[in-house]
Amino acid sequence: MDFSSKLLENAVYEMSQLPGIGKRTALRLVLHLLKQPIERTEGLTAALANLREQVKFCTGCHNISDVEVCEICASPKRDKTMVCVVEDIRDVMAIENTSQYNGLYHVLGGKISPMEGIGPQELTIGSLINRAKQGKIKELIFALSSTMEGDTTNFYIYKQLEGLQINTSTIARGIAVGDELEYADEVTLGRSILNRVPFEGSLKAN
Amino acid sequence: MDFSSKLLENAVYEMSQLPGIGKRTALRLVLHLLKQPIERTEGLTAALANLREQVKFCTGCHNISDVEVCEICASPKRDKTMVCVVEDIRDVMAIENTSQYNGLYHVLGGKISPMEGIGPQELTIGSLINRAKQGKIKELIFALSSTMEGDTTNFYIYKQLEGLQINTSTIARGIAVGDELEYADEVTLGRSILNRVPFEGSLKAN
Repeated sequence: MDFSSKLLENAVYEMSQLPGIGKRTALRLVLHLLKQPIERTEGLTAALANLREQVKFCTGCHNISDVEVCEICASPKRDKTMVCVVEDIRDVMAIENTSQYNGLYHVLGGKISPMEGIGPQELTIGSLINRAKQGKIKELIFALSSTMEGDTTNFYIYKQLEGLQINTSTIARGIAVGDELEYADEVTLGRSILNRVPFEGSLKAN
Repeated sequence: MDFSSKLLENAVYEMSQLPGIGKRTALRLVLHLLKQPIERTEGLTAALANLREQVKFCTGCHNISDVEVCEICASPKRDKTMVCVVEDIRDVMAIENTSQYNGLYHVLGGKISPMEGIGPQELTIGSLINRAKQGKIKELIFALSSTMEGDTTNFYIYKQLEGLQINTSTIARGIAVGDELEYADEVTLGRSILNRVPFEGSLKAN
């Protein structure tokens, strides 16, 4: 693309560095900002800069938080003997939305992925093991996505927990509620048969 | 969505005000910036702020430009008797890419749209009429999209030009090169038959 303005070219370039935003989309977004009052752009840039400069992570679970200890970790109503291990804040938000979980979280910040150069040191695994060694946690629930990286991370943590009296579990994989059996992939269907639950138990969730 | 951080919520809100960016996408983009070095965010915010504050428009054609008179208007090689009327800079870039046009442009900045509160005063139509009255322009090419708003804008400008000795034309509408006739809509196919060109003429373009 040939731009008539270096300023425009630069803005489009920076915008197109965001994931899933190509050059054309970036140009559309930048031109939209140009048509809007300047306060729009100031609001966006200030919000991004403030977040990036002042972002804090909860000292307990490493979730993004404005205070030292996040609301979930600080709440007296939460069950502090259960910790759900997730990849990032989106997973916390998704699980919180279900209103089915009353324990704490631990946000790893990613998954072990040698291909992308992410080892255990880049994640908050050390901090999780420290939490586990304090002896308050009775159950650890792995809720990482079931990819090779997710499974590797689960297993790495599992090995680190050896010798500690902590139960581990993973969230159930199976056919989504409302889905047709015939369209499910074999791995998922196979797992949902192996991990079948007593009928009375399945009634509780609703 | 319930956010654990006001800073994060604010950044996601501002990002989701961009066209075509929903809350989920905004969250994904913001979390991406958080994972990147702070220079990434600084680069983006600086580029957007600089563009918005320092953007200039060519005094001739109103295209975005870093200088008073843009490269196209200033070029001695361009045919100054032809002006192509377009909606925004993207249309200029698209036409320039074809290398088939050697005249000047006039960027309106939008189309007349009473529904969106855009009247002739919001666009650069007055400036176009002034250019036309200077007597240098011999042909005006309308290259707005063929929507109701585009046609209205074309017609409004056409009426304003009355009494001036200027030829007007619109870009040809027809079947796209390489497209199958059977899949074309009737309006386009109808126009391409009415506006057929001499066979020798069609060879020139290639």
